[in-house]
Amino acid sequence: MSTPQESRSFGKLRERLYIIVFGTDTRAGKLFDIVLLCAILGSILAVMLESVKELNDVYGEVFKILEWTLTIFFTLEYFVRLYIVEKPIKYATSFLGVIDLLAIIPTYLTLFVAGGSYFMIIRAIRLLRIFRILKLSRYLGEAQVLVNALKASRYKIMVFLGAVCSLVLIMGTLMYMIEGGENGFTSIPRSIYWAIVTITTVGYGDIAPQTVIGQAFAAILMLMGYAIIAVPTGIVTSEIAAAELDVKQKKAKIVCDNCGETNHSSFAKFCATCGHQIG
Amino acid sequence: MSTPQESRSFGKLRERLYIIVFGTDTRAGKLFDIVLLCAILGSILAVMLESVKELNDVYGEVFKILEWTLTIFFTLEYFVRLYIVEKPIKYATSFLGVIDLLAIIPTYLTLFVAGGSYFMIIRAIRLLRIFRILKLSRYLGEAQVLVNALKASRYKIMVFLGAVCSLVLIMGTLMYMIEGGENGFTSIPRSIYWAIVTITTVGYGDIAPQTVIGQAFAAILMLMGYAIIAVPTGIVTSEIAAAELDVKQKKAKIVCDNCGETNHSSFAKFCATCGHQIG
Amino acid sequence: MSTPQESRSFGKLRERLYIIVFGTDTRAGKLFDIVLLCAILGSILAVMLESVKELNDVYGEVFKILEWTLTIFFTLEYFVRLYIVEKPIKYATSFLGVIDLLAIIPTYLTLFVAGGSYFMIIRAIRLLRIFRILKLSRYLGEAQVLVNALKASRYKIMVFLGAVCSLVLIMGTLMYMIEGGENGFTSIPRSIYWAIVTITTVGYGDIAPQTVIGQAFAAILMLMGYAIIAVPTGIVTSEIAAAELDVKQKKAKIVCDNCGETNHSSFAKFCATCGHQIG
Amino acid sequence: MSTPQESRSFGKLRERLYIIVFGTDTRAGKLFDIVLLCAILGSILAVMLESVKELNDVYGEVFKILEWTLTIFFTLEYFVRLYIVEKPIKYATSFLGVIDLLAIIPTYLTLFVAGGSYFMIIRAIRLLRIFRILKLSRYLGEAQVLVNALKASRYKIMVFLGAVCSLVLIMGTLMYMIEGGENGFTSIPRSIYWAIVTITTVGYGDIAPQTVIGQAFAAILMLMGYAIIAVPTGIVTSEIAAAELDVKQKKAKIVCDNCGETNHSSFAKFCATCGHQIG
Repeated sequence: MSTPQESRSFGKLRERLYIIVFGTDTRAGKLFDIVLLCAILGSILAVMLESVKELNDVYGEVFKILEWTLTIFFTLEYFVRLYIVEKPIKYATSFLGVIDLLAIIPTYLTLFVAGGSYFMIIRAIRLLRIFRILKLSRYLGEAQVLVNALKASRYKIMVFLGAVCSLVLIMGTLMYMIEGGENGFTSIPRSIYWAIVTITTVGYGDIAPQTVIGQAFAAILMLMGYAIIAVPTGIVTSEIAAAELDVKQKKAKIVCDNCGETNHSSFAKFCATCGHQIG
Repeated sequence: MSTPQESRSFGKLRERLYIIVFGTDTRAGKLFDIVLLCAILGSILAVMLESVKELNDVYGEVFKILEWTLTIFFTLEYFVRLYIVEKPIKYATSFLGVIDLLAIIPTYLTLFVAGGSYFMIIRAIRLLRIFRILKLSRYLGEAQVLVNALKASRYKIMVFLGAVCSLVLIMGTLMYMIEGGENGFTSIPRSIYWAIVTITTVGYGDIAPQTVIGQAFAAILMLMGYAIIAVPTGIVTSEIAAAELDVKQKKAKIVCDNCGETNHSSFAKFCATCGHQIG
Repeated sequence: MSTPQESRSFGKLRERLYIIVFGTDTRAGKLFDIVLLCAILGSILAVMLESVKELNDVYGEVFKILEWTLTIFFTLEYFVRLYIVEKPIKYATSFLGVIDLLAIIPTYLTLFVAGGSYFMIIRAIRLLRIFRILKLSRYLGEAQVLVNALKASRYKIMVFLGAVCSLVLIMGTLMYMIEGGENGFTSIPRSIYWAIVTITTVGYGDIAPQTVIGQAFAAILMLMGYAIIAVPTGIVTSEIAAAELDVKQKKAKIVCDNCGETNHSSFAKFCATCGHQIG
Repeated sequence: MSTPQESRSFGKLRERLYIIVFGTDTRAGKLFDIVLLCAILGSILAVMLESVKELNDVYGEVFKILEWTLTIFFTLEYFVRLYIVEKPIKYATSFLGVIDLLAIIPTYLTLFVAGGSYFMIIRAIRLLRIFRILKLSRYLGEAQVLVNALKASRYKIMVFLGAVCSLVLIMGTLMYMIEGGENGFTSIPRSIYWAIVTITTVGYGDIAPQTVIGQAFAAILMLMGYAIIAVPTGIVTSEIAAAELDVKQKKAKIVCDNCGETNHSSFAKFCATCGHQIG
């Protein structure tokens, strides 16, 4: 990340800080990353536990202090990052830069607005930095396969979601007419909420059909949901399989030294195009 | 859609209207499509919110007016469509034509029958027109793959659904005999409803086995449902994968200019049938 | 099924009955099959509706009469089948023969034992005859693919079920120790029942963890169940895909007239083994 | 397992015991394995049934006696195993050896600590020995395919679980802010528990959104969970398919007697590398 030439143009302090904050190979760099992750985890835990009334009554002050200490630490870290990168504006507008800023704002907001502290949960996204330590590239590659598979199937998924939404709209209205308000289906939006709860097989049971006809319709909706869940799985599976095949084929390609031809059968001894010996 | 020759045979007004109503490339055509979609969405929202008692008490009049305004707009649109197409009967009996008619009838029905307004939810299907704007063909192609996959697996899915229905019938009756009415399994149809709720993993909890034997049977049914859900997924997945392979292979086919042969290995330089060089 | 030679050895009545009862191609044969299916459906409906107290109070007598009429009809049909087949013992011990017998016994049992009538639901299995009318072979082929896929993956599924059972046993015991009787986890078997309800994502909610530690463990179990459900799906899907590939490859095989060799590439013009020209 | 040479170096008793305890081919060896499995099953059942209050009140003494008898039997068996194997330390530190020890400790612990007996459920793992009788290798091979598939997809699954955890964290906090304590969302950890219950489609219904906005967010979370469940299935399926393909390809490989080359097309008659005739 920081080649010698680049870092030489930095000031001495900036250079050192750069290695600590952005580097991952030196001991100091690794230590900084681990401390940062612990601080993030700690601050998320503090927000979560603060919301538990029993704990807040006893340890409320501790959480407050922890919150402010960590926020000040994150603020310092943010400005250090701005100071040491060559192009501060590029960092400030990058994905991680925006997240870093969003992670410190909510605490300051609590000085003016009540309840703002819960937005600090946005810090969870900063945990993405964990991949930096765990040999990022391997995970990025795998994530890439997943993202590509989802991207490749986005039109199919949209068609599918459109069909599910129409089904849910129609079934919800039908059930509203069949069951009516006295059985919990008090309005069409609420019936649609029930239909989504049912078709996704979540099934809370807070609203459930009581009449025989309603139960029959619900049973049909469930069986449809049962069959329908197969569709997105099928879409994503075949895309992932295709994406993986692509990756494997790229690795398996044998390149001819002479002409660059890559279309050889896997056990070729001579290039199929120019006759040059391979490997 | 409207080639110059066709439109020339239209009257001037008809021609203009045709471009606006059926076209999507001109500004007026696009605007019309967007206005139409907003009107459909608005009318669906009105039906939905009208069913919420609190909102209806306050805005009931607004919903009524909105409903009638939009219905009159849709009625006009329907007759304009009938007027400007070359073969009105073909349009009136086409899928979208029937939906367009069904979407306006319910409101007029409410003059005679109470509660008919809820059938207006059928307008949701008109939202399919949204694909017109979003470059229809791409979505149609994807939808085609899904429909083909489902069609190709229809016999397997019917065999599977038959097996599930038998299982549900037998397990429902068994549970009715084991649990009996005092635990909520008051009749065989209701027990079958429970079995469907369980095997699809919806699990409302409004009916749940109370006896030890009943819970043991329920546990077996759940594990079977767990294994069984793999079957439709497997069916649809392998069909989608096959359908996608077909599409890709069609794209990848190399056609010989000389003899039209398409069965070439992917790295062939000469036609396998006639020896003609391939591009 | 009944070639002319075979039927000639039958008595005239037997011959006619055979064509009606076992045949599906003649009008009389088709009519008999449809009447039989209706009778089976009717008798299943009668058993189901008889269990609904409100209906039984009013129509109890009708159900009784229908039950006995249909049972006598099925008994006659059973003896006719025994009479007209060439090898009665083979039919009586075949799968469908045993089901046919089991379908009539329960009604006679009700003369001696109360509640036996519910076993009549076993008649549902007789509905399998519906495939006879719907061009049986096509469905049998599809069912065969599914059964083969399940058979091929039976060892994997047993390993998987063994793992799930161990997990459920251990998690159930853990939750019994964590939550205890006051939160509904009154015994280990009941806790195991809860664990199965949870891991299969049914989630009735009749037993649910109340303590924080219990909820944390439950959350872990759910996420594991979420990941685990992927395994049987993966197993069955890859087997179905493989089974379908087999079927396709068998169809696609090109047989050499000269030497019987089937291993040809799909666009071969000459046999790869003996050089004989192909089709 | 015990070749003649090895056993000759054993004492006569040791030799006999070895054949009985570790062997599976002789009648005595098979009998011992079956007795052992029954003892394990019996002891697990005893622990389970002891936890049912009604049964413990009546049969408490029986369970106690059974427990101690079986534990003493298992203790003897453990020391016999230690005595007869050639390298006792290797056995004592092996996976099965540790489990064998862990399976007997809890009962002795109950002399000092209350409730320790429930840890005896660890004996369930000893049931793995069942595979010894059922021709182990076949199941091991299948288990290997599953484990390999899971291993190969471990990075993808970690990326996926990370995404699910972030989603659950953010949605849980959002719902805590939207619904608040009066609707059951009393703290962020509890809201996260709800989000997990919802996204995995378990849906107990002990906590369910009551406000309209909360239900809308819950519906979105469900639909996301519905789409997301397709991802792990897709990952595992494509890995299992790949793993099975590997196994099949290995079996299908044709080895040249002359040079050991395995890269032949499936219908080759001569080795592609050295020209030696195959098969």
